[in-house]
Amino acid sequence: MSFRKKLYIIIFGTDTPAGKAFDVGLLIAILISVLAVMLESVYSINQRYGIFFKYLEWFFTVIFSLEYIVRIYVTDKRRRYIFSFYGLIDLLSLLPTYLSFFFAGTQYLLIIRAMRLLRVFRILKLGRFVGEGEQLGRAIKASRHKITVFMGTVLMLVIMLGTVMYLVEGRENGFSSIPLSIYWAIVTLTTVGYGDIAPQTILGQTIASFVMILGYAIIAVPTGIVTVELQKDQNKQKEKACLKCASKGHDSEALFCKFCGEKLPV
Amino acid sequence: MSFRKKLYIIIFGTDTPAGKAFDVGLLIAILISVLAVMLESVYSINQRYGIFFKYLEWFFTVIFSLEYIVRIYVTDKRRRYIFSFYGLIDLLSLLPTYLSFFFAGTQYLLIIRAMRLLRVFRILKLGRFVGEGEQLGRAIKASRHKITVFMGTVLMLVIMLGTVMYLVEGRENGFSSIPLSIYWAIVTLTTVGYGDIAPQTILGQTIASFVMILGYAIIAVPTGIVTVELQKDQNKQKEKACLKCASKGHDSEALFCKFCGEKLPV
Amino acid sequence: MSFRKKLYIIIFGTDTPAGKAFDVGLLIAILISVLAVMLESVYSINQRYGIFFKYLEWFFTVIFSLEYIVRIYVTDKRRRYIFSFYGLIDLLSLLPTYLSFFFAGTQYLLIIRAMRLLRVFRILKLGRFVGEGEQLGRAIKASRHKITVFMGTVLMLVIMLGTVMYLVEGRENGFSSIPLSIYWAIVTLTTVGYGDIAPQTILGQTIASFVMILGYAIIAVPTGIVTVELQKDQNKQKEKACLKCASKGHDSEALFCKFCGEKLPV
Amino acid sequence: MSFRKKLYIIIFGTDTPAGKAFDVGLLIAILISVLAVMLESVYSINQRYGIFFKYLEWFFTVIFSLEYIVRIYVTDKRRRYIFSFYGLIDLLSLLPTYLSFFFAGTQYLLIIRAMRLLRVFRILKLGRFVGEGEQLGRAIKASRHKITVFMGTVLMLVIMLGTVMYLVEGRENGFSSIPLSIYWAIVTLTTVGYGDIAPQTILGQTIASFVMILGYAIIAVPTGIVTVELQKDQNKQKEKACLKCASKGHDSEALFCKFCGEKLPV
Repeated sequence: MSFRKKLYIIIFGTDTPAGKAFDVGLLIAILISVLAVMLESVYSINQRYGIFFKYLEWFFTVIFSLEYIVRIYVTDKRRRYIFSFYGLIDLLSLLPTYLSFFFAGTQYLLIIRAMRLLRVFRILKLGRFVGEGEQLGRAIKASRHKITVFMGTVLMLVIMLGTVMYLVEGRENGFSSIPLSIYWAIVTLTTVGYGDIAPQTILGQTIASFVMILGYAIIAVPTGIVTVELQKDQNKQKEKACLKCASKGHDSEALFCKFCGEKLPV
Repeated sequence: MSFRKKLYIIIFGTDTPAGKAFDVGLLIAILISVLAVMLESVYSINQRYGIFFKYLEWFFTVIFSLEYIVRIYVTDKRRRYIFSFYGLIDLLSLLPTYLSFFFAGTQYLLIIRAMRLLRVFRILKLGRFVGEGEQLGRAIKASRHKITVFMGTVLMLVIMLGTVMYLVEGRENGFSSIPLSIYWAIVTLTTVGYGDIAPQTILGQTIASFVMILGYAIIAVPTGIVTVELQKDQNKQKEKACLKCASKGHDSEALFCKFCGEKLPV
Repeated sequence: MSFRKKLYIIIFGTDTPAGKAFDVGLLIAILISVLAVMLESVYSINQRYGIFFKYLEWFFTVIFSLEYIVRIYVTDKRRRYIFSFYGLIDLLSLLPTYLSFFFAGTQYLLIIRAMRLLRVFRILKLGRFVGEGEQLGRAIKASRHKITVFMGTVLMLVIMLGTVMYLVEGRENGFSSIPLSIYWAIVTLTTVGYGDIAPQTILGQTIASFVMILGYAIIAVPTGIVTVELQKDQNKQKEKACLKCASKGHDSEALFCKFCGEKLPV
Repeated sequence: MSFRKKLYIIIFGTDTPAGKAFDVGLLIAILISVLAVMLESVYSINQRYGIFFKYLEWFFTVIFSLEYIVRIYVTDKRRRYIFSFYGLIDLLSLLPTYLSFFFAGTQYLLIIRAMRLLRVFRILKLGRFVGEGEQLGRAIKASRHKITVFMGTVLMLVIMLGTVMYLVEGRENGFSSIPLSIYWAIVTLTTVGYGDIAPQTILGQTIASFVMILGYAIIAVPTGIVTVELQKDQNKQKEKACLKCASKGHDSEALFCKFCGEKLPV
């Protein structure tokens, strides 16, 4: 096996000890670099250790740049990797630091630096979490049309409610425009309730009470949808047969047949 | 096929390409006109572009008026359309602009203009969302008696709790009347928690703690109800046979038999 | 049939038209009298119409007194009625007005006047809501041990969290005692979030974040419990046989056999 | 049976009347001592009864010390008890008072004193709550991987959202650092909504609206997970056979076979 092939298995694979060690090391590097982004934004910390964070950022950028180059070097389908979701994120998370070299006021690149977190998902694609994650994903995917219908109805509701409250409460009670009133309706219906805008008139408080009780009751709907889909997915998995030994009754999060060890069909 | 018949299929139908294009165009027109109503209410925007929004409103009113007239022209059962739910909403969403011509201070007509949104539901009555929406509707309809019992109990609870808190906290702590205390109880039980009224005495805070834990626990009840109804609905659908090939085991959101393509009974 | 017997059927029964009319009349009287209690507490309304509410209260007290006397008169098991739950509430809801005749400062009797609402439950014990209510009741009763275990764990958690936050935030940030910190922990864990007490230190906000995510996640537990119990109850009902025709498969909220009309066993 | 053996049964056992009485007594002592810790922290109470609470604390410390010594005396596997979870808590809950004898400013030992509450769990390990608690525990344990996946996704989400909001709202609107913005994102996503930090710009409020609706919708996920696991656990229990009479169909919370009274396998 060539050196390049070996490196490929370490960097892209997750089954060998070296591959696992690489993943864990990368995970730690990503988490520290994101933590640095966060701490740098704290005024008092930035005042004192600003220079240190600058160096740390360059240190991680160089490491991630090397990693990116090696990834391109070892992979066979280079174009495919570069333009893949994770390939683009790998590149994007490097650019901000280099760009800050040429342009001033690049604070908006912070978001891109925080996007490094998305790289964590690739690394976590190992072990027993895959089956669980896939099961959740399937249930959410199966619920998407029902959730869309539900969300659309909720959206219409808050637009109507926002318009009504704008007229009932008016500018003098903080409901200074329909969009702001819709914002209030969302804050109330979802039971967040900041309290920065709150109804003052009796009629407004009565309507608000109905909105709250409504919000309290309709949260049951998405919950019911997801629960039923999860249940359904599980039943379907139970009915699925192993392609090798034809056995049934596998758990919904199982990846391998429990009788013959064969990989189960998705 | 007469011109009137063709127009009918375009305007009321959803299956032809022309019908779909008409629906999408109407959908966009409605959404823009509602967005205009919202933006017009923002003080700074209204100051600058007030005249523009006036013109836009007249533009959409004329378009919707034409659409309303054509709808009456092409339909065979005119009286039925005019007095149907959507017919009345079609008419209502036109009136505010014309009325503002004759009367001043017609800001309350804003609500009616926002009601245009309800027209979206007619347009969305297409494609795969129908089955999903119907399934949700059936589950909610089947839960209505249980939800009523639950809501009635919650209503009694908040009235009792409001009365108790009015006496415990009293006027000096912001619980200035029983209705306002009931409003507080609803805000707390539904876990919205604005914080504009909050208990100050130790006894009041103790009672409030019980209310919160209660609210936290009883949210389980409507959720359980809807989940069970959704599950039940699904099982019922599974048992339902296709009228053509008598096959069973159809998904609850299926509209057509998966074996012979026949429309399934509702 | 004696006049007393006839009166008994009207007052205690719900199946005859006269009985139904009596129940509806009583329901309206109770709701108006409770509404009067509420409105009387509003300062501006009390200032203007205070005398009117006094008279209204006496009017309803006399009516309910008459009703109470008639109830005792028509029933055979007088002692049993008087000391039953509803009998005591019937009496209790009369006393406050009479007591206000002899004592001043009887505002605390307000709560007892609001307890009249409990009488509504007796009247609502009719029609299709019984089966639904009973089903909910059974599910909640079956969940009570699990809910107790859950609640006990939550209680311990908030006591621990309250103590920790009292030390972390301290008096200067509003966490002025352990009971108040526990109150804060309950407000946060149940996702009510008034905002009257909120952590100011970084450590405090970090702990608070964990509390919130915990509260967000563990709400799943009571919901799961009630859902499973409702499902279980329904399955049990399905398996239950009619005592007359031995048919099975009845809905969980059914009161009568759908094949022979016999009352189903509870 | 030796005196030591008898004492062992009373102190560690729960089945004899004496054992039950001991447990109840200990439970009351623990609850009073924790209540004392709480009340002592209230400034006004501490000012007046400070000395009394000092004595009470010493009184309970002596009692719990005696109990600890007796526990060591009666048990056969001393080392095992001392280093067991409950053994360590028994010791820890004594130390603070003794340490306060030697060191000043030991207020941080309060937390350890509050940890006495954990001892309650040992005592509650009796009666019908065991089965229920175990069932809940199994369901939560079975959900742990899915909950981890869910929580990880939520954590990433709030970090991203916090970074975005820090840039959108900025220091002047209270989002003074990324960690604080993440704190805000958690407060909002979990629908707690203190309102101490709230978006002021239109873009910020729009993003916040999406966060709220997201938080409102994704609460369905952990709920669905736990519900399905509880259901699954129940079905599994139903299929489990009694080791003595081989009967099936036992309730998930049952500890004993309902046909022959044999203890069921866990």
